[in-house]
Amino acid sequence: MAETAHPGAHSILEHDHASAWLGISVLSVGEGKATLQMTLRKEMLNGFGMAHGGMVFAFADSAFALACNPATGSAETITVASGVDINFLRPAFEHQLLTAVAQRRSSAGRSGIYDIEIFAADPGAPLPGALIAEFRGRSRTIPRKKDTP
Amino acid sequence: MAETAHPGAHSILEHDHASAWLGISVLSVGEGKATLQMTLRKEMLNGFGMAHGGMVFAFADSAFALACNPATGSAETITVASGVDINFLRPAFEHQLLTAVAQRRSSAGRSGIYDIEIFAADPGAPLPGALIAEFRGRSRTIPRKKDTP
Amino acid sequence: MAETAHPGAHSILEHDHASAWLGISVLSVGEGKATLQMTLRKEMLNGFGMAHGGMVFAFADSAFALACNPATGSAETITVASGVDINFLRPAFEHQLLTAVAQRRSSAGRSGIYDIEIFAADPGAPLPGALIAEFRGRSRTIPRKKDTP
Amino acid sequence: MAETAHPGAHSILEHDHASAWLGISVLSVGEGKATLQMTLRKEMLNGFGMAHGGMVFAFADSAFALACNPATGSAETITVASGVDINFLRPAFEHQLLTAVAQRRSSAGRSGIYDIEIFAADPGAPLPGALIAEFRGRSRTIPRKKDTP
Repeated sequence: MAETAHPGAHSILEHDHASAWLGISVLSVGEGKATLQMTLRKEMLNGFGMAHGGMVFAFADSAFALACNPATGSAETITVASGVDINFLRPAFEHQLLTAVAQRRSSAGRSGIYDIEIFAADPGAPLPGALIAEFRGRSRTIPRKKDTP
Repeated sequence: MAETAHPGAHSILEHDHASAWLGISVLSVGEGKATLQMTLRKEMLNGFGMAHGGMVFAFADSAFALACNPATGSAETITVASGVDINFLRPAFEHQLLTAVAQRRSSAGRSGIYDIEIFAADPGAPLPGALIAEFRGRSRTIPRKKDTP
Repeated sequence: MAETAHPGAHSILEHDHASAWLGISVLSVGEGKATLQMTLRKEMLNGFGMAHGGMVFAFADSAFALACNPATGSAETITVASGVDINFLRPAFEHQLLTAVAQRRSSAGRSGIYDIEIFAADPGAPLPGALIAEFRGRSRTIPRKKDTP
Repeated sequence: MAETAHPGAHSILEHDHASAWLGISVLSVGEGKATLQMTLRKEMLNGFGMAHGGMVFAFADSAFALACNPATGSAETITVASGVDINFLRPAFEHQLLTAVAQRRSSAGRSGIYDIEIFAADPGAPLPGALIAEFRGRSRTIPRKKDTP
């Protein structure tokens, strides 16, 4: 399926306060895939002056959510993370531009496996830069509760 | 080893901007363990009105860091996450109080395995509340670079 | 729940050809737990003269299956592994006696998390010996098909 | 790098008793990759009449070992599994032909990430068949001990 012509136009971002705080921008979304960017700010650093693992994870997790839910939303179901295995390969630093590339790898029934690669580039350097983490998400599609935004 | 009498007094928190932003408070730290609390705020929610998985992960990751680094710091080494497997068991919601209990499970050479349980309780309800996620962290101890804070 | 007085009497072992080939013996089973033993034979070794990771995994996986299915069987459902995260901490060698201790850690709906610790002891040495691997299993309870043994 | 012209000619298989018992055949090996086949026999089944998860894992683990060690061997180092995350997507059954496709995904220093996909096909059906499991291996390169075969 072609990627959308309207980057950022994904229904689940409308109420996603965490992605807004992270300053995430959506480069593209498509069937089972999404590409996002985020710049590392000071409040995303840990006590060692590197990107906090949780902030790298949160960024990748947003890409995962966009890849496993339809851009137009669904009245019946939502797809959520049941679990994730993440490997941190290299540290990332303030001011670097992160890119997350999410892609569905397989699905069976209501379960899916998604791979999200996270890259980091120095300001002005060629994108996407060095691979810093590999995130493998396990998704589960569940009925949408009536009061879900 | 006894837990410290000075909750919050952990060297790696001094420069941890991410943990400060998350509003994490340290209940106790000890040899290979740590217990932390955090209240879920609106900017920690995803597009479904639930806690963003990345924020739950970030909270647990901070507990992991406190459990695997000595409270007084080390001039020679730092211990970082090489990877994590996390299972999300139940959603969590705004205003809930989260508790993370981190504990070393095993170690061999420069590698360690830590389990972090994350609980969520409604405001005023008994603590720690319901188990919402299981985080298993893989640590690696590496030489401290000279310019690490 | 008390452990059974009849070690080895677990319904799912009756037709388990793989566990029979592995030479697994059941020390005890109980609600959500099981303890098994197995001796490492030459055909369980890899090209480096150490226990093949798959044989250590298979042994732990049998303990997982016994811990997450009732000893008396169920006419309605079976519980299977949807996934596993395993960490190999130390190698194991021919003639060593392995012990697997499986225990339910949490459950929510039809999903469960089980931890299985695997130990290895030299012949005649005190049991259970050194921790060689940590296996975290994710279970899923599904309807039993009519033709399942 | 081109795949070898000599399927099966991988140094670490020479002493691999477990792979021999499993009846593994090597279709191809190359730099950071390997493709293997194995037929499911009765002694690889669990108590539910399906392939024992440990046997599927062991098969994939052999593919992992071939992909992360050079076909000609190394006098200095060996590369071993430090851990694995595996997702079981569908059951497999007796007489099915399994294919494992292993490929390096990333590496950093002495650590690597390898993805192994496992497929199952009925006898005579087109290969590789249905995807039954996704295995993500974490490798670690360590010094070869003098007495390692």
